[in-house]
Amino acid sequence: MISIDEARRIILEQVTGLPVVSVPLLDSLGMVLAEDVRSPWDIPSADNSAMDGYAYSHDLLKGESLLVCGFLPAGTIRTDPVPAGQAIKIMTGAQVPPGCDTVVPVEDVLETSEGILLLKGPSKSGSHVRKRGEDVGADKLIFTKGTLIRPQEIGMLASFGRTTVPVYRKPVVAILATGDELVEPGEARLSGKIINSNSYSIAAQVLETGSTPIMLGIARDDRDTTRRLLQQGLQADVIITSGGVSVGDHDFVKEVIEQMGGEIKFWKINMKPGKPLAFAAIDGKPLFALPGNPVATMVGFEMFVRPALLAMMGHTRSIRPLVRAVATEPIHNKGDRPHLIRTLIELKDGKYYLKSTGDQGSARLSSLTLGNALILVPSGTTVEAGDEINASLLDRSFEMQE
Amino acid sequence: MISIDEARRIILEQVTGLPVVSVPLLDSLGMVLAEDVRSPWDIPSADNSAMDGYAYSHDLLKGESLLVCGFLPAGTIRTDPVPAGQAIKIMTGAQVPPGCDTVVPVEDVLETSEGILLLKGPSKSGSHVRKRGEDVGADKLIFTKGTLIRPQEIGMLASFGRTTVPVYRKPVVAILATGDELVEPGEARLSGKIINSNSYSIAAQVLETGSTPIMLGIARDDRDTTRRLLQQGLQADVIITSGGVSVGDHDFVKEVIEQMGGEIKFWKINMKPGKPLAFAAIDGKPLFALPGNPVATMVGFEMFVRPALLAMMGHTRSIRPLVRAVATEPIHNKGDRPHLIRTLIELKDGKYYLKSTGDQGSARLSSLTLGNALILVPSGTTVEAGDEINASLLDRSFEMQE
Repeated sequence: MISIDEARRIILEQVTGLPVVSVPLLDSLGMVLAEDVRSPWDIPSADNSAMDGYAYSHDLLKGESLLVCGFLPAGTIRTDPVPAGQAIKIMTGAQVPPGCDTVVPVEDVLETSEGILLLKGPSKSGSHVRKRGEDVGADKLIFTKGTLIRPQEIGMLASFGRTTVPVYRKPVVAILATGDELVEPGEARLSGKIINSNSYSIAAQVLETGSTPIMLGIARDDRDTTRRLLQQGLQADVIITSGGVSVGDHDFVKEVIEQMGGEIKFWKINMKPGKPLAFAAIDGKPLFALPGNPVATMVGFEMFVRPALLAMMGHTRSIRPLVRAVATEPIHNKGDRPHLIRTLIELKDGKYYLKSTGDQGSARLSSLTLGNALILVPSGTTVEAGDEINASLLDRSFEMQE
Repeated sequence: MISIDEARRIILEQVTGLPVVSVPLLDSLGMVLAEDVRSPWDIPSADNSAMDGYAYSHDLLKGESLLVCGFLPAGTIRTDPVPAGQAIKIMTGAQVPPGCDTVVPVEDVLETSEGILLLKGPSKSGSHVRKRGEDVGADKLIFTKGTLIRPQEIGMLASFGRTTVPVYRKPVVAILATGDELVEPGEARLSGKIINSNSYSIAAQVLETGSTPIMLGIARDDRDTTRRLLQQGLQADVIITSGGVSVGDHDFVKEVIEQMGGEIKFWKINMKPGKPLAFAAIDGKPLFALPGNPVATMVGFEMFVRPALLAMMGHTRSIRPLVRAVATEPIHNKGDRPHLIRTLIELKDGKYYLKSTGDQGSARLSSLTLGNALILVPSGTTVEAGDEINASLLDRSFEMQE
């Protein structure tokens, strides 16, 4: 039985970043950039107007009036210099023509019917002109390999004319449930049978990381079916099973893994729920054999599979944030293993407060649906009301404002 | 010119939740439940074993040994009672047979070759048995309308046999860029032209809310094209334009909206960047005419479009969380409008610290790519180094642990 930290270390040593692929610009949202990106040119590529207004030469301005000599819509170019003492009407984004260095916004002038422009107030040289390269100079290193691509990175990449982006590929994750007692949701509900909910909660957890789940279905409790389905799963990048890793006669997932030439890196972690969790490698691919109890399955995924998937996608930070929260009631761990207790965190006046979600039975999914955070309570200890402890936030929707 | 709060109020009054649709279970992840959900049956539906072990009657146990009378794999049912003083081998999830109330895990016993079971220690009545309805009783209200669907809710819904879920539909958002000066990324780069990056940053922001973007392309600066493309956009639930809402001759998006029978609810907001932002309704559909400067476009989306899209999806909390952060340098707003300054927040010892991302020019996308938060600095004021201020977090990846 190894510790949570030791298990994580073994897993993160084993998994490696997936190959670099080139994806369409918008598909790169949320993915990790796999190469440095340099600006291909100056942005802006030429001095241009930041406002709808009039361009002129500030130093050659005599008095407060100018003769308007033409019109420059955005997207058009004037190569003839604008003569001294004259101005040209210019739209936002249009290139400032030769002979001009300053723009006065349309709101700050009066144009008479004779085409004479009167400035309402003093102007400043260079104002309302976006200088060439002002935002980004040509060949400047813009994004380093490893950058998380957010909407603003998409915008910047688009402004460089990029239509595709090199990123680390998203893992495809094959999901297998095991057990004669299982039926799929929607199938006839027979006495003694249990609905396979684990494959769906796992698939949702996979989706949340940005990875792609594929469903292998249910393996009945026989070695041949299990082997055949695991073999199918090897087409994916990662395999996750649930159930069949305890010590009962029918818990032979580990056995089949070894028959297939896989190597069990560890089995059993010193934690509750989720002790009987095996991590293996088959054909160099990580396989997580999660326990079958619904809460143990989800907590096992959260603690070990999620960081692995994020690391495979190139994320350097793969563990959820911890926040300091004040317990509002005593929380006991009378057991002999560290207990990942499901809690509900609330935010009051900028401070986090938490309480247990109640009965922590590892089959009781409501211990997760009623909460939003996990705390780790060492064996034989009690968190007293008022204690400040670390909590791992599973979702942060409770922090949104109405 | 109206205030940010007033603009938000007008927008959130105007938008309504989209129709309820039924989606496949996994597709409901991240969406908002549109109906109350009650448990259709007890979970578990019968007393069953929480462990691989042996079931027996605790009260009828004589001494520490029991005769093993059979085997119950998961998914099978035994209707004959187990006689007093006997035990039956039972797998996790298998229904506890009549005559038994307790399970002892396989690790805690020795089974002799003669089928005699020796308990290694004392046992407790009812232990390792999941009682019928222990997790959820039949017809209990499980999730109320408005619940955000996370992986644990998916798991719970699957365990109820649900294959589809009623949720508020995701908005389809039509995106239009305006301006003669624009070319699409990947097109030949002509002098005087600017690449349309706004449609891509907006599309990425739309995707981040969970909504679906559709691209209407670029409207050249003429009324007919603009009208034709906006008309196409009316097939979507929301229309977003960028550019063409200032006061120049070519800024006629507002004019076309009115010609199409649309009602401009407001134009111009007392903020920087993003003052020239119009909100309208055409055929009852919200239209956001965002300014054309790349940063103003993204900040306008963040402040006004994002909350509207979330509200349309049924989220009751639609505004990003604010955190308290300490400025590490003075940050000035010398202007006459409240300034949404882009900042970089870091987390040290559980406390947030922020600094400006530098030049805040509204064409300068790097002011956003270098940061992760917005602060609102009132006009003519300075945030001093050491001041604690509210900051709106645009992404929280910086809080993840390595």
